[in-house]
Amino acid sequence: MIERIKVKTAKHTTVINITQRVREIVEASSIENGLCVVYVPHTTAAVFVNEGADPDVVKDILNTLERLVPWENNYAHTEGNAAAHIKSSIIGNSRIIPILENKLMLGRWEAIFLAEFDGPRERELLVSVLRI
Amino acid sequence: MIERIKVKTAKHTTVINITQRVREIVEASSIENGLCVVYVPHTTAAVFVNEGADPDVVKDILNTLERLVPWENNYAHTEGNAAAHIKSSIIGNSRIIPILENKLMLGRWEAIFLAEFDGPRERELLVSVLRI
Amino acid sequence: MIERIKVKTAKHTTVINITQRVREIVEASSIENGLCVVYVPHTTAAVFVNEGADPDVVKDILNTLERLVPWENNYAHTEGNAAAHIKSSIIGNSRIIPILENKLMLGRWEAIFLAEFDGPRERELLVSVLRI
Repeated sequence: MIERIKVKTAKHTTVINITQRVREIVEASSIENGLCVVYVPHTTAAVFVNEGADPDVVKDILNTLERLVPWENNYAHTEGNAAAHIKSSIIGNSRIIPILENKLMLGRWEAIFLAEFDGPRERELLVSVLRI
Repeated sequence: MIERIKVKTAKHTTVINITQRVREIVEASSIENGLCVVYVPHTTAAVFVNEGADPDVVKDILNTLERLVPWENNYAHTEGNAAAHIKSSIIGNSRIIPILENKLMLGRWEAIFLAEFDGPRERELLVSVLRI
Repeated sequence: MIERIKVKTAKHTTVINITQRVREIVEASSIENGLCVVYVPHTTAAVFVNEGADPDVVKDILNTLERLVPWENNYAHTEGNAAAHIKSSIIGNSRIIPILENKLMLGRWEAIFLAEFDGPRERELLVSVLRI
């Protein structure tokens, strides 16, 4: 089963917690034991799993990426958003999460995030759920 | 099939070679052609595949991560372990490895590692094996 | 179904667009809805998905990795290629892409790339296609 999630990002760099929407897709699938793949088909975006309880964790992740990959740095790509492509490649454009008893096996503090590094944009994610 | 691996990390930053334990789960599955997903549901941990022959490779990986993401750096997250969350997000919390003839298709020098960036901790991994 | 792709890298650091070869494997599989996993079993190589239209994007990605992980930096690994192992671990050795109606669901600008950070080499990738 492959479902779509649509999101709108409001700012230049935005991270959106999509855990609840992914969870609904997993529950609707009725798959007991399986895997869930969350994929974003956009070259300035990324998907990651980390702490969802304290929003400062995401803030620190974004600030560190910005320090390591500054927006302006004499890049060759003339569209001006090279840093967003680089951050996307470092974090990666998907994550895969096991499913047990129809539940996403996220850790206690874990959430699934979409990051857009060159917004605002309307973006789509593909959520694949498979039985194993 | 989804199995659990429990590990104890002894130091603050620890990398543990879990290849043999993953291999045993794959062999017990009797799956000939498939995929193996190794997932760690903890926000200060990561999973990666790289050279297992020379332990200096892991040392260089850890030292470089520490140089890029220092433990103290005026982070917003007040628990003090922001760097561990950031390293986890950069490396990622899972790896997927093909299975052929019931063997993990790791390269000659490859091993599967759990990294914990904020130990010591007792941690659990989820190893999913699926037929394809 | 697991198929192999062989590539030769010509220079020390090389990125090769393997999208067309992966697409042919997906089409030959006749799988309508599924997932495609592209895995490179070599510890100085990586797989990533990003913009394929402007080659300057890949150039900026490689230059940034080289700035963050310089080739010479008093590494412990005595073979001299520690930086290649570290870059491989940061980018990761696989990517997973959804398949719908027998098509790779890459975004409009997306391509699948093999990166070799310590060539020239002859390398092999494993492309797994599974029905979901």
